Amino acid sequence: MKKLWGGRFTKTAEEWVDEFGASISFDQELVLEDLEGSIAHVTMLGQCGIISNEDSELIKKGLLALQEKANNNELEYSVKLEDIHLNLESKLTDMIGPVGGKLHTGRSRNDQVATDMHLYLRKQTSTVIQLINEMQNALLTQAKAHVETIMPGYTHLQRAQPISFAHHLMAYFWMLERDKERFQESQKRINVSPLGAGALAGTTFPIDRELTAELLGFQGIYENSLDAVSDRDFILEFLSASSMLMMHLSRLGEEIILWSSQEFRFIELDDAFSTGSSIMPQKKNPDMAELIRGKTGRVYGNLMGLLTVLKGLPLAYNKDMQEDKEGMFDTVKTVTGSLKIFAGMIESMKVNTNQMETATKNDFSNATELADYLSGKGIPFRESHEIVGQLVLTCVKKQCYLADLSLDEFKEAHPLFEADIYEVLNPVTAVQRRNSAGGTGFEQIKLALQKAEAKMN
Amino acid sequence: MKKLWGGRFTKTAEEWVDEFGASISFDQELVLEDLEGSIAHVTMLGQCGIISNEDSELIKKGLLALQEKANNNELEYSVKLEDIHLNLESKLTDMIGPVGGKLHTGRSRNDQVATDMHLYLRKQTSTVIQLINEMQNALLTQAKAHVETIMPGYTHLQRAQPISFAHHLMAYFWMLERDKERFQESQKRINVSPLGAGALAGTTFPIDRELTAELLGFQGIYENSLDAVSDRDFILEFLSASSMLMMHLSRLGEEIILWSSQEFRFIELDDAFSTGSSIMPQKKNPDMAELIRGKTGRVYGNLMGLLTVLKGLPLAYNKDMQEDKEGMFDTVKTVTGSLKIFAGMIESMKVNTNQMETATKNDFSNATELADYLSGKGIPFRESHEIVGQLVLTCVKKQCYLADLSLDEFKEAHPLFEADIYEVLNPVTAVQRRNSAGGTGFEQIKLALQKAEAKMN
Amino acid sequence: MKKLWGGRFTKTAEEWVDEFGASISFDQELVLEDLEGSIAHVTMLGQCGIISNEDSELIKKGLLALQEKANNNELEYSVKLEDIHLNLESKLTDMIGPVGGKLHTGRSRNDQVATDMHLYLRKQTSTVIQLINEMQNALLTQAKAHVETIMPGYTHLQRAQPISFAHHLMAYFWMLERDKERFQESQKRINVSPLGAGALAGTTFPIDRELTAELLGFQGIYENSLDAVSDRDFILEFLSASSMLMMHLSRLGEEIILWSSQEFRFIELDDAFSTGSSIMPQKKNPDMAELIRGKTGRVYGNLMGLLTVLKGLPLAYNKDMQEDKEGMFDTVKTVTGSLKIFAGMIESMKVNTNQMETATKNDFSNATELADYLSGKGIPFRESHEIVGQLVLTCVKKQCYLADLSLDEFKEAHPLFEADIYEVLNPVTAVQRRNSAGGTGFEQIKLALQKAEAKMN
Amino acid sequence: MKKLWGGRFTKTAEEWVDEFGASISFDQELVLEDLEGSIAHVTMLGQCGIISNEDSELIKKGLLALQEKANNNELEYSVKLEDIHLNLESKLTDMIGPVGGKLHTGRSRNDQVATDMHLYLRKQTSTVIQLINEMQNALLTQAKAHVETIMPGYTHLQRAQPISFAHHLMAYFWMLERDKERFQESQKRINVSPLGAGALAGTTFPIDRELTAELLGFQGIYENSLDAVSDRDFILEFLSASSMLMMHLSRLGEEIILWSSQEFRFIELDDAFSTGSSIMPQKKNPDMAELIRGKTGRVYGNLMGLLTVLKGLPLAYNKDMQEDKEGMFDTVKTVTGSLKIFAGMIESMKVNTNQMETATKNDFSNATELADYLSGKGIPFRESHEIVGQLVLTCVKKQCYLADLSLDEFKEAHPLFEADIYEVLNPVTAVQRRNSAGGTGFEQIKLALQKAEAKMN
Repeated sequence: MKKLWGGRFTKTAEEWVDEFGASISFDQELVLEDLEGSIAHVTMLGQCGIISNEDSELIKKGLLALQEKANNNELEYSVKLEDIHLNLESKLTDMIGPVGGKLHTGRSRNDQVATDMHLYLRKQTSTVIQLINEMQNALLTQAKAHVETIMPGYTHLQRAQPISFAHHLMAYFWMLERDKERFQESQKRINVSPLGAGALAGTTFPIDRELTAELLGFQGIYENSLDAVSDRDFILEFLSASSMLMMHLSRLGEEIILWSSQEFRFIELDDAFSTGSSIMPQKKNPDMAELIRGKTGRVYGNLMGLLTVLKGLPLAYNKDMQEDKEGMFDTVKTVTGSLKIFAGMIESMKVNTNQMETATKNDFSNATELADYLSGKGIPFRESHEIVGQLVLTCVKKQCYLADLSLDEFKEAHPLFEADIYEVLNPVTAVQRRNSAGGTGFEQIKLALQKAEAKMN
Repeated sequence: MKKLWGGRFTKTAEEWVDEFGASISFDQELVLEDLEGSIAHVTMLGQCGIISNEDSELIKKGLLALQEKANNNELEYSVKLEDIHLNLESKLTDMIGPVGGKLHTGRSRNDQVATDMHLYLRKQTSTVIQLINEMQNALLTQAKAHVETIMPGYTHLQRAQPISFAHHLMAYFWMLERDKERFQESQKRINVSPLGAGALAGTTFPIDRELTAELLGFQGIYENSLDAVSDRDFILEFLSASSMLMMHLSRLGEEIILWSSQEFRFIELDDAFSTGSSIMPQKKNPDMAELIRGKTGRVYGNLMGLLTVLKGLPLAYNKDMQEDKEGMFDTVKTVTGSLKIFAGMIESMKVNTNQMETATKNDFSNATELADYLSGKGIPFRESHEIVGQLVLTCVKKQCYLADLSLDEFKEAHPLFEADIYEVLNPVTAVQRRNSAGGTGFEQIKLALQKAEAKMN
Repeated sequence: MKKLWGGRFTKTAEEWVDEFGASISFDQELVLEDLEGSIAHVTMLGQCGIISNEDSELIKKGLLALQEKANNNELEYSVKLEDIHLNLESKLTDMIGPVGGKLHTGRSRNDQVATDMHLYLRKQTSTVIQLINEMQNALLTQAKAHVETIMPGYTHLQRAQPISFAHHLMAYFWMLERDKERFQESQKRINVSPLGAGALAGTTFPIDRELTAELLGFQGIYENSLDAVSDRDFILEFLSASSMLMMHLSRLGEEIILWSSQEFRFIELDDAFSTGSSIMPQKKNPDMAELIRGKTGRVYGNLMGLLTVLKGLPLAYNKDMQEDKEGMFDTVKTVTGSLKIFAGMIESMKVNTNQMETATKNDFSNATELADYLSGKGIPFRESHEIVGQLVLTCVKKQCYLADLSLDEFKEAHPLFEADIYEVLNPVTAVQRRNSAGGTGFEQIKLALQKAEAKMN
Repeated sequence: MKKLWGGRFTKTAEEWVDEFGASISFDQELVLEDLEGSIAHVTMLGQCGIISNEDSELIKKGLLALQEKANNNELEYSVKLEDIHLNLESKLTDMIGPVGGKLHTGRSRNDQVATDMHLYLRKQTSTVIQLINEMQNALLTQAKAHVETIMPGYTHLQRAQPISFAHHLMAYFWMLERDKERFQESQKRINVSPLGAGALAGTTFPIDRELTAELLGFQGIYENSLDAVSDRDFILEFLSASSMLMMHLSRLGEEIILWSSQEFRFIELDDAFSTGSSIMPQKKNPDMAELIRGKTGRVYGNLMGLLTVLKGLPLAYNKDMQEDKEGMFDTVKTVTGSLKIFAGMIESMKVNTNQMETATKNDFSNATELADYLSGKGIPFRESHEIVGQLVLTCVKKQCYLADLSLDEFKEAHPLFEADIYEVLNPVTAVQRRNSAGGTGFEQIKLALQKAEAKMN
């Protein structure tokens, strides 16, 4: 078949150049959005009298027929027709004749493809937001069950201070809350219509951009036609918000992997989310946590890829911009899949509360309690710190823990130590007493859970 | 001097490890924020009765004295004291004695440094927003002067359709508007107080986090102490918004470079923003546009760097996170400098209106007019397109332009062509007639300028 | 069907987790390599007496049958069987019975997949090297035809000094030569066998790794089994060399786009490598040059993606590493396609020699000649530079070029100017006289072409 | 002071544009290389008779005086003079008068700065190679001391099979060996002289590029002057090789952090390489391992930054390329520092051999032994695997390990199990028996250590 833009050319492009340049292998993902956009456009053309109502209705009928086929996966595409737009237009013309050629009046592929992508990403962003909610709910559910489950809190992967497991999980809840905010804020810039911007400069036809915007559910239109066809910020924002989200998931993934190790044994993943080894039958690998940690790389790469594509591009459309799609599709697939997996993994994991609590007892993570104890009695913090450091050193030499020291030994270190020091050293007490706002104290956690639940409703 | 955290250690770290690990060489940039945070903290300690009012006042006085010295650039720092926090605490203690050690009660370096960075980035983000405004004003000023300046609009760097230069400039105005929105939205997450989160778990002292937040002008507090000390999203958001902004500047930079070339000669940059060559005295290089286009690389790199740092990090603080600062400082410097330069460059550039207009006449960028003409008379767009393609081919063979064809030649191509076709082919008419919303038609541009000015007020 | 590693599990993984974790959708690309590796492995098992010769022959026969099917595209894969390795093993067992289960003796999927990837990348790297050669030949062919074609040489996209077009093209020849070197050097580290490293620690079976290495054409074996299964450097090297190659192509792409613009008109691309516009029939867009410039982004992204994946991964195999493949496949496809397109595009492009030469006359790019002229007569270079700067300024004010000044005007600027100055100002002379080694003088170019041709033979 | 290139300009650039564009704040790092290059250049100018011998000697004397001052840190630079080249030239002229202006004859800043960077990176690459050697030696030393130290080998951070600690360490030795190879191979492309390429096209003066190359110790010259001034591949190669090196260090860093945790307790770092906490005196944080893991981000970022800068740049020099330096300097500093720290950290770390060995006993990492045992007796591997999986499941239910099962229980699982199975289950035996080439068997390790030592000599 003849190329639609080929009027001027005297030579047929070779097959392989065509294939290299064609986007139909991936932009068919946009088939429904493209039809939706076309239906709105042709409706407007009819209403504005740019084409006759009969033509408008005829074309719309054809597009609806294609829509049904697309929904039933009955459409087949040709590389010769480059992209989804020309493939669909060709099918339309095959179906209803040359009048189909009127569909493209007052429109260009440049504003058409931009419209498709806005529609696509609007839908996907909603899905992502909903999946974030589901993962937050999974975290909330586990957190509510583990308010009084004590575990070591870490800094530098060294046990630092005992905390509640609920508190740890809720840190991720709030990270996801920020992720959600970012996706929500980006919707403002996604939900804007570029349709009617033409190739770059608008059109001479008396189109009504507000009407197509309304038909497509957009909240406004691009104010500048060059910007409308050149802008890919909304995709970059999606990739950037996704990169941060994946970064968060990679952190939780890392922790799940650590917690699943024989050395930690804090949790056991459900079999659905772990796999065995072809050679080592005893293994129960936290595969999904690892895989998602790894998939962070591709999302970062997609972000970096599109930033590179756009760097230094003059206005308006350049063919480089065809490269905006695959990374976006891949990121949507990665992010939605990762969120689903994580929600299920969190919800179904078994927590070894004994193992966690035991871990809080066999170390020096209650040392801060001592320092705070002394400072509470008026010793400048830096001095308390020094004194406790010496006590820890004593323990290390004696191969014991702080609670194993006698009161005499404490008093020798500093006379202000009293018998109540042993209660202070108890990890549960230590957690309970960190009752400052947002802290790990049980009361604070309960308040925080209430706030979180309110957020979710 | 003895290390403050060294109570437990029996061995002195060698000098070069110290230097490698120390952050004072760059985090001294945070000196004012660190003092501001400490003043709020110690005020709260006094008001909450955690330390005595006398101690609180004494410490505050010391901190104010340091603040004055810092403002006068009179402070000197030591690598031995690792970072800005320990350097300042040491100076405080030197000044007011061991009572200075009470400042750190109920606080950790983890929440302290997070507070400093929130304060820092809050200030810098405001500056960036203001500088975006200035650059938008520069674009507006030039646009208002060039509503009726005609130039070729490009796609694929091929002349596509004539447009107004104002329209082209305003595309950047709207890009910057989105940039501004992103920075503004990020303020919501910057302007939150981590102070009081302690090392990771909150504190046993009865601190008042709302009070310190209020004293520091924060709009709220982090709900979770682990999140408060582990979160660097706000920096990533800044780097991400900056990457998009630099991408926009790199696009305008590219165009300025093209327009300044002997081949385009559309503009002449002011001498202040261009330089000569050591060997070629005739050169007037658009150095600043090139340099800023190049600086896009470092901002992308800073974003990728921090995303990499945070990938897979378990909670809560890890030393890796010390790497969050230099890229942030560098990006602030790059972005603010670039915006300043660009505002000046745009405002002062001379536009060669004749050269631009001449360029619209010697090519086929009016071909779309012909196709629209036919489609306006009922020919399906795809057919019109085909007919015009043949006419262009005829011109190429005859080495002339479309306006050079006779009416007979037009009628031969299609009988619906009439004598009014020559008016249609005039570039000025072409621009004027693209009067769809957001298009390049003069009326539309004037409306768009009004909207833009309203935005700025 | 039952999962091969599922002996221990009591619960079936849900379908969607399976799909998310499975790699068969992309690692089927490795089918031939996987079979090749298995054939070598089973041959060795037989020769070393680890399994009987009959079993070895039987398995080998089955593998050869699969190989034939694979070559005929007759194999179908199942997501349930996760990856290409288990899919093939299952087909083998279906074909020859339980004895197929002996194939995996003394082998793990970890060394198996590493082997596949080494085999794959060895083949692809050879292809890339050959395609670089083809593009170098295209450059050479054009360069030989244009030794005496004069064009402006640019710095800062400002005309700087006239050069030969051959000289410009040959700059890319040498960039590609370095690219080739890098790919060649990487072969040393690709062509090493991980087979026999087992899961991570080697195997208890008396395998012969040298034998399988020899059968597969590897030049050596990994010296350490953990390293063998954990190493992905060879892929990173490929991605890194590809990034630099794409960077070079993006630079040439940018120049081709500039040269194809109406403003430059230095070249005309063959229709096979350019396309039209759906709305502007006169356009002849350098689509392929733009697309490849854009594809630089995805290759950078793939590099950054894999670097991110591997950052901070403990030894040995982690599921994150499954993410090593898609970016590699995509890069192979991108790089080989881009080189093919570029070779054809360079070879077929038409050069507008008149337009290029005209461009060298209408500017000040001969100013350096004047400065060199004076310095040649003993004036310190910085002084000559200053004098010529003043002359250029005079011309700018008079709206003329340097060759338009009278000898009196020259002498007024400096008495050492003589009548021979007009010959010096001729662009052809200027090119000819830059006869330093590697310079643009015609003699030098001819020498350089000879060296380049020698390189290619 | 007057700008050297300012002859043509009528307006003084404002201060802040100057500062933004100036590179002297960082390119002063190249002072010695710049002087070295100038000395070679002026020597050549004299020998070739381009300037008189007296002038040449006079200038050289001046340059040597500057060299001495530079070595004594006695030079001060001015932002007004933009960069190191103009700063030095100005000092030279101040010292010896206008004859200093002859130094720049037949040279441009474009080839000058390229020369400086080649000299700089040649030196730094040698240093990096030497530091890699030192770190390899540290690994070798520890490995030799721990051939028979048994530890769990991990995949998916799950204990997989017991291995020798020496074997684990040596995996990093071989990674570093590849890093070294890459740096060595890059030297071929670093050690090439761009000097004499001029601004882009060579020069009209009869210079001798071979002579300056020889004086500077370069092994050859760039064959094409445009390439010589536009090429930054050698920096990209350095950044790319550094990224891979840092990736390796980040992996070892991650392991050191894990091993230092209370959960693993496999090693204890020397106090010199770990630090305490301001609030938790018991902490001994593996700060240096964390910091270097984090610094991977900045090196990746520097690579991505320069790749972005160069993408799509037309030939020859563009001001964007000034951005090539800071990332390079920063990477040199990061990589050399990281290698030094790691060498010391590895060499000085204490290994808890008991803890490691104990860990190999309390898990199922000997399960593969059972599977291999059965396969060795003729059971197809996949069946053995299934049988062992069931045995592990039995143990999990009984809360015991494999060695705790009775012979009867083994025989029930499969009649081929015999009493020797208990020896097979012993971790030491397991390690010993993995004696395939490159495996963890003690014999193999000893062979590998010999090969490694041979490599180092």
